Amino acid sequence: MEAYDELIQRFKETRLLESIGGLVGWDERTYMPPRGSAHRAEQMALLAKLCHQKLTDRRIGELLIKLEQSPLVKDDESVQAVNIREIRRVYDRAVKLPESLVEELARVTTRAQNVWQEARKDNDFAAFAPWLEKVVHLKRQEAQAIGFKESPYDALLDEYEPGATASEITKVFAELRKDLVPLVQEVTSAKKKPRKDILSRDYALDRQHLFGQSAAAAIGFDFTSGRLDTTVHPFCSGIGPGDCRLTTRFHPREFNQGFFGILHEAGHGIYDQGLDADHFGTPMGSAVSLGIHESQSRLWENQVGRGRPFWEHFFPRLKQSFPGTMDDVSLDDWLFAINNVERSFIRVEADEANYNMHIIVRFELEQALIRGDLNPRDVPGAWNEKFRQSFELTPPSDAQGCLQDIHWSMGGLGYFPTYTLGNLYAAQLMEQARKDLGNLDDDFRRGDFAGLKTWLNDNVHRRGQKYRPRELCRRITGRPLSHGPLLKYLRQKYAELYEIR
Amino acid sequence: MEAYDELIQRFKETRLLESIGGLVGWDERTYMPPRGSAHRAEQMALLAKLCHQKLTDRRIGELLIKLEQSPLVKDDESVQAVNIREIRRVYDRAVKLPESLVEELARVTTRAQNVWQEARKDNDFAAFAPWLEKVVHLKRQEAQAIGFKESPYDALLDEYEPGATASEITKVFAELRKDLVPLVQEVTSAKKKPRKDILSRDYALDRQHLFGQSAAAAIGFDFTSGRLDTTVHPFCSGIGPGDCRLTTRFHPREFNQGFFGILHEAGHGIYDQGLDADHFGTPMGSAVSLGIHESQSRLWENQVGRGRPFWEHFFPRLKQSFPGTMDDVSLDDWLFAINNVERSFIRVEADEANYNMHIIVRFELEQALIRGDLNPRDVPGAWNEKFRQSFELTPPSDAQGCLQDIHWSMGGLGYFPTYTLGNLYAAQLMEQARKDLGNLDDDFRRGDFAGLKTWLNDNVHRRGQKYRPRELCRRITGRPLSHGPLLKYLRQKYAELYEIR
Repeated sequence: MEAYDELIQRFKETRLLESIGGLVGWDERTYMPPRGSAHRAEQMALLAKLCHQKLTDRRIGELLIKLEQSPLVKDDESVQAVNIREIRRVYDRAVKLPESLVEELARVTTRAQNVWQEARKDNDFAAFAPWLEKVVHLKRQEAQAIGFKESPYDALLDEYEPGATASEITKVFAELRKDLVPLVQEVTSAKKKPRKDILSRDYALDRQHLFGQSAAAAIGFDFTSGRLDTTVHPFCSGIGPGDCRLTTRFHPREFNQGFFGILHEAGHGIYDQGLDADHFGTPMGSAVSLGIHESQSRLWENQVGRGRPFWEHFFPRLKQSFPGTMDDVSLDDWLFAINNVERSFIRVEADEANYNMHIIVRFELEQALIRGDLNPRDVPGAWNEKFRQSFELTPPSDAQGCLQDIHWSMGGLGYFPTYTLGNLYAAQLMEQARKDLGNLDDDFRRGDFAGLKTWLNDNVHRRGQKYRPRELCRRITGRPLSHGPLLKYLRQKYAELYEIR
Repeated sequence: MEAYDELIQRFKETRLLESIGGLVGWDERTYMPPRGSAHRAEQMALLAKLCHQKLTDRRIGELLIKLEQSPLVKDDESVQAVNIREIRRVYDRAVKLPESLVEELARVTTRAQNVWQEARKDNDFAAFAPWLEKVVHLKRQEAQAIGFKESPYDALLDEYEPGATASEITKVFAELRKDLVPLVQEVTSAKKKPRKDILSRDYALDRQHLFGQSAAAAIGFDFTSGRLDTTVHPFCSGIGPGDCRLTTRFHPREFNQGFFGILHEAGHGIYDQGLDADHFGTPMGSAVSLGIHESQSRLWENQVGRGRPFWEHFFPRLKQSFPGTMDDVSLDDWLFAINNVERSFIRVEADEANYNMHIIVRFELEQALIRGDLNPRDVPGAWNEKFRQSFELTPPSDAQGCLQDIHWSMGGLGYFPTYTLGNLYAAQLMEQARKDLGNLDDDFRRGDFAGLKTWLNDNVHRRGQKYRPRELCRRITGRPLSHGPLLKYLRQKYAELYEIR
């Protein structure tokens, strides 16, 4: 038991140090002055180096070997066994990475995010290209250092979605696309169209902030243990127990961006706040994977937040919050507008059906980047080409094309597919929650989201990393992950709204 | 030269890590959610431990010994000699402190700041008392570990003001008090009184923010490398090159607090921004002492910001910023009001004369705490007693008495006297700047503060720690520090305003 305690104490310290990096990273994207970037890169590089040093300490390896032969691992679902198993996973990955690479990645991606932010604003891919080259170069080195069976991409993907592979995801995505394409086709050729102009009116920023914040609180995000700020590319950062940070961006004449951004990040935040604080810093107090994390954000944003029962509660409050703006708008108008299906350029503004097509574009491009089949400098052309194939549209600018997302600048290659995995998990989990909890919609109509939140706390959040993503899904829903529930949910929603079939 | 480079590289890393602690501490006092305090304390403790480990690495000691016998230290004003000398100072202090004490101090003071903040709000000294006990207990241990010739207080003071001692400061303060008391007496019994009500009108917060920010920018604070936020107890935090954070607090019906708070912190910020970025993380790129730091803030806040020429430029702008609020106010009214001399309870709102009496109260109390002559639980009584002696007033509450300042909660015992040292240095430096630069007042009237800022950059900021505080003062002004210039300045100012003598 002494060896176990030492292992946990050592591992917790690496996570505590990481949580400092989390806060420093949050600041970088919210409040850091423009000229602070170079110094920030040095801070991030130092933190990454120190984390890596702590994590790869030979003593952790010795303790793991000792504990893996101990009775502690007999019951493989015990807290100890889970922690030992998952610390092994993280340790094995870390020791394969040279310290210099870890440090350089932190330094380069901090600078690259800053350059990306300016490049996106100025629609200047050329300014970003050398930094994308640096990042891709380092990530390819990382993939080689980690090693892989089938594809170097798998080595990167595994960090975000343990056990997932590109070939498996390719299959799931292909099935999804096969059913999605005709559905989108059908919906977009329907005669009935929403009044989408109602989403582009004067929505005063401070009122957007207040209304969004109150909705996030209503679904269960605890603002005594968290906050909401604005940023260029929204994210949620769980710093540690009692401290979780949501971010969003507002547009004074667009409702969706700010509001659904908040609901989305609040879904992530509710997961982080639902982790077992007593296990903070250990696998049993950590999220399973990015795919499961995304399932929580998409579940609240879409399955709940774009549904009729949710707005039966919130629509009168919305009208009060923006007096005069909505006088000519009915609940039906509103629901139809926020569920408008339309091909467009920006992923985070895409409807629930087209969203996944945006992911597939990125998934294919980043595999090519990591394989070395696509030169980072050729990304704009390749992006536009792929985009045309999927959407029959050409992005009017790189800012609305390959520069729209922060991920590659922060080294997040292998990250995008977890968004669509999240959509799939969200639909399958929600289907199960509705079975387990009876009439959830009545709760929502009353503004009561506690039942669903508690169900997610019990089934997902408080289990930590007890199960890997696919196993967790099977445990909760009794079935392996499939695209069935998402398709069924979308079909039903659009059939009602668009009066098709 | 190799040994020197290694020393610098190692020392810089400790400072880089410290700068992360600076940012984390800034966040703690600006944006951290209420329940984040316990986790934050763990983060701060870990950072303090890691810093201490890096700084006390035996290798630094070996390198210092080697370098102290090398030709590098021959010219004792060379960059290398200064860096070696000052790293030795910091190293010798650090190795005397046990790691457990360093860690515990960081943990306890983080929590204590949070408790203090609530206790001050609730006027509840009893809630804070156990934390003050813990802090004082740890600081007494620190003083013993460091060692001292005359008084344990000296061991703490030395961290903030290298080379200063309680007995020397006691002497300076006694002389100052001897001349200040009759001056205050004379001023407060003058017939002429300012219309101080004009400072307590409706000053809209957003306009205060904008006006204060524009004044900070005008005197030379660079907002592309910094920012301004609100907090409970204002401070300035220089994170590193390109990143310096000012904070203030605003009251919707008080002008002074927000505005002079900003000018004050901007003075600190201009010092931090004026340090040589190429020497960041080494003594040659670091501030001399808290006393000298405070001289910069007090110089801009008082010597410049409460003077007639400054307001000849800013008063018309002030009237524009708060339309309608100032219609009945003349420049003379305004100048007199912002220089009102009156005994009051709050240090940071005190006039330039009484301010130093506030410091003397704290200086005497904290010496008693560190000697063990005053039990932390008895602070309220002792405070009120001392306060009555100096001000002939009894604080109406602990919130307006011993709970008003953050310093003791953050372990800053030995910190307060540097404020009055700062006032003395500010007056002596300003006297010299006026000699060197000719008619500064004409510059100020035109809103031009660049001449003074450049003079401070050259004479103070960019010299880093080349000279210790007293020597720096002698080099710049040709004389040792005395209370003469401050007294002369105050006498002249009040003679004009109050029409005395």
